[in-house]
Amino acid sequence: MQNIAVIGYGVVGSGTVELFEKNKEEICRKIGRDCGIKYICDLRDFPGDKYESKLVKDFNVILNDDDIEVVAEVVGGVTFAYEYTKKLLARGKSVVTSNKELVATHGAELFEIARQNNCNYLFEASVGGGIPIIRPLNKCLAGNSIEQISGILNGTTNFILTKMIREQMTFEDALKMAQELGYAEADPTADVEGHDACRKICILGSLAYGKQIYPQYVHCSGISRITLDDVEYAENAGYGIKLVGTVKPAGNGRISAIVCPRLVPKSSLLASVDDVYNAISVTGDGVGDVLFYGKGAGKLPTASAVVGDIIDCLKHHDRHIMLDWEDCTDPSYVVPYKQTENSMYVRIKAADADAEDLKPAITELFGKVMYLERNGRPDDELAFITPVMVEAKLDDALAKLSESAEIASKIRLM
Amino acid sequence: MQNIAVIGYGVVGSGTVELFEKNKEEICRKIGRDCGIKYICDLRDFPGDKYESKLVKDFNVILNDDDIEVVAEVVGGVTFAYEYTKKLLARGKSVVTSNKELVATHGAELFEIARQNNCNYLFEASVGGGIPIIRPLNKCLAGNSIEQISGILNGTTNFILTKMIREQMTFEDALKMAQELGYAEADPTADVEGHDACRKICILGSLAYGKQIYPQYVHCSGISRITLDDVEYAENAGYGIKLVGTVKPAGNGRISAIVCPRLVPKSSLLASVDDVYNAISVTGDGVGDVLFYGKGAGKLPTASAVVGDIIDCLKHHDRHIMLDWEDCTDPSYVVPYKQTENSMYVRIKAADADAEDLKPAITELFGKVMYLERNGRPDDELAFITPVMVEAKLDDALAKLSESAEIASKIRLM
Repeated sequence: MQNIAVIGYGVVGSGTVELFEKNKEEICRKIGRDCGIKYICDLRDFPGDKYESKLVKDFNVILNDDDIEVVAEVVGGVTFAYEYTKKLLARGKSVVTSNKELVATHGAELFEIARQNNCNYLFEASVGGGIPIIRPLNKCLAGNSIEQISGILNGTTNFILTKMIREQMTFEDALKMAQELGYAEADPTADVEGHDACRKICILGSLAYGKQIYPQYVHCSGISRITLDDVEYAENAGYGIKLVGTVKPAGNGRISAIVCPRLVPKSSLLASVDDVYNAISVTGDGVGDVLFYGKGAGKLPTASAVVGDIIDCLKHHDRHIMLDWEDCTDPSYVVPYKQTENSMYVRIKAADADAEDLKPAITELFGKVMYLERNGRPDDELAFITPVMVEAKLDDALAKLSESAEIASKIRLM
Repeated sequence: MQNIAVIGYGVVGSGTVELFEKNKEEICRKIGRDCGIKYICDLRDFPGDKYESKLVKDFNVILNDDDIEVVAEVVGGVTFAYEYTKKLLARGKSVVTSNKELVATHGAELFEIARQNNCNYLFEASVGGGIPIIRPLNKCLAGNSIEQISGILNGTTNFILTKMIREQMTFEDALKMAQELGYAEADPTADVEGHDACRKICILGSLAYGKQIYPQYVHCSGISRITLDDVEYAENAGYGIKLVGTVKPAGNGRISAIVCPRLVPKSSLLASVDDVYNAISVTGDGVGDVLFYGKGAGKLPTASAVVGDIIDCLKHHDRHIMLDWEDCTDPSYVVPYKQTENSMYVRIKAADADAEDLKPAITELFGKVMYLERNGRPDDELAFITPVMVEAKLDDALAKLSESAEIASKIRLM
């Protein structure tokens, strides 16, 4: 039966169709019955496309066709995708998606509609591309209290940082290369400023702790201000720089979550995750640390997760899979990052020529810091790592320090 | 309701009880109803144990108690465990297990009994301890054609090899240390000779390709003959030595599977998996390479997987989860390893003093080989890597070479 539709015939959509059709025979064996893609919905024309006969422009054709059991929403964004998903679920059609923005902002509502209509809203492709992480976290690790989830969740920024660290390219040059290779979009803001990684850590935290974490409550900083000087200081001290999303319990039923660049010890596995690869480390009280690694984006890797979800929906037709979280409207659920504790790498430029003169003041403000070195460090520059401090106090100290020096960089430690 | 029983109160059994009781409140929330451990079955006495009141010696108490919905079989072996599992499944009670030997030898039969009785036989704990791999492979990666699964599947041997490589300990000393630390058993045969890893790769291959792969058809060699000389040659050439299980399609609906030590390029992720950690690399035609990493054994890591399966069974009471494979009685399903192609590291001891004299004969037998070096290589020793050859031809060449030299070691390349 032709019971599948794909909405959005872009990179992920075409990958989904390609992978499904390639492995169709084996997929139908796994589902236990004949299945097929009936419609591909896109407003654009694709003259001469192999699957042109399946193309429709009107979403309602899919919505009103009783044959359609599952729809892959790979449009992205929270306008059409949100409206379409609600309508489909309300009709009892399962939806699978790679749309991290939609899951991170409307997940709880959409799960509830799916539950009420005995269908499913699955989102394995929304985090880590093809890396299996949603089901492992929800099922395999369900016996654990999750102590922390940390991940390199954005391939574009990891590619840029890898080029900066391994080949001493500047941020600007590395970004340009990422755009030329198709890893970064023309407007790279969502990747570079950490918004994409933020949506993903919100999804993982929502799943692990059972309540929706809205991205707007999560502090998020990107990599656009990292310089090769910072890379050099970090390297010399045995650290790589990675954009890391982290979520963990913060006591009293609250959680803390943050996305920011971090100095990661080179001995850790996360430090060796290079290029467009992603890795997610989950710490449970039973299992200890487990790591999931693979290509975090791309046509076929993401399609792998979408097709996996399609198969699961068709195997569980008319049965709701419990893979969801509750809504949470309490704005204090996510502890403000200023109340969390961190150790910070700081690079300063002294207003006066000799930065060494500032060392007594630095000790007074931060306590005992560790100074870092690099070849040809200018006299007006200092880089150091602070002790672990509450962020608000760190900020106060930095504000005072900024009276006599420019705060050129600050990067949290892992 | 007290609806869970644990059979076997050893390391994994006690870990299962400990982890469940610790996270009980959260676990019941996930299941959506009250659940609890009613019985722990073991023939031994545990006077003063915290859960002594739950201990029973008679298996039939569990079998005949209608409250019991799911049983964790963590006894091991294929005698009692097999009999108990069949009886429980036949009564419609789900069974979860860490028993890789039972799953690898009787999996297909037990899945069929579970299917007929609308209950489940889950085995996430049987491979990779707490590392989620069974569900990810079965569900998240279901859209892929699996091109290969390779893994470091035995923590004990990986610990021994790590000590040999990083600290130049001999095999015997490293084994003794592993035994003292509780990683290796008094009789280490199953670990050291690769039988444990073999059962695990059989389980992964059965799941990936849908038909039972019986361990007796899989060629299996262990690490007991690896010397520090081999480690040194490998290191100098940029390789680590790991015990690796591999399974992949071999064409015409057949598969190839093997467990053996391998020279692994140091640049690969598998080479950096040390100590008792396990890692499993899965290659799919959509997803590319994904890697799963974590503690492959131990009390709480394994319990993490057992408890995860208990939760899944209780969430799906009276619903069969499709996580299984068919039986396969065709002995030709697994291609004999002598028909597969490999490149081989070979170390020889020449009967005459100068091994260099053998080089023309080696070229004639194997074609162009790559010679390796180590500090203070004796005149009577040579080590080289052969081109990729059919194993049967490799064996013929080695047999001919053995007329003029002792074949001291042979290790396949990755």
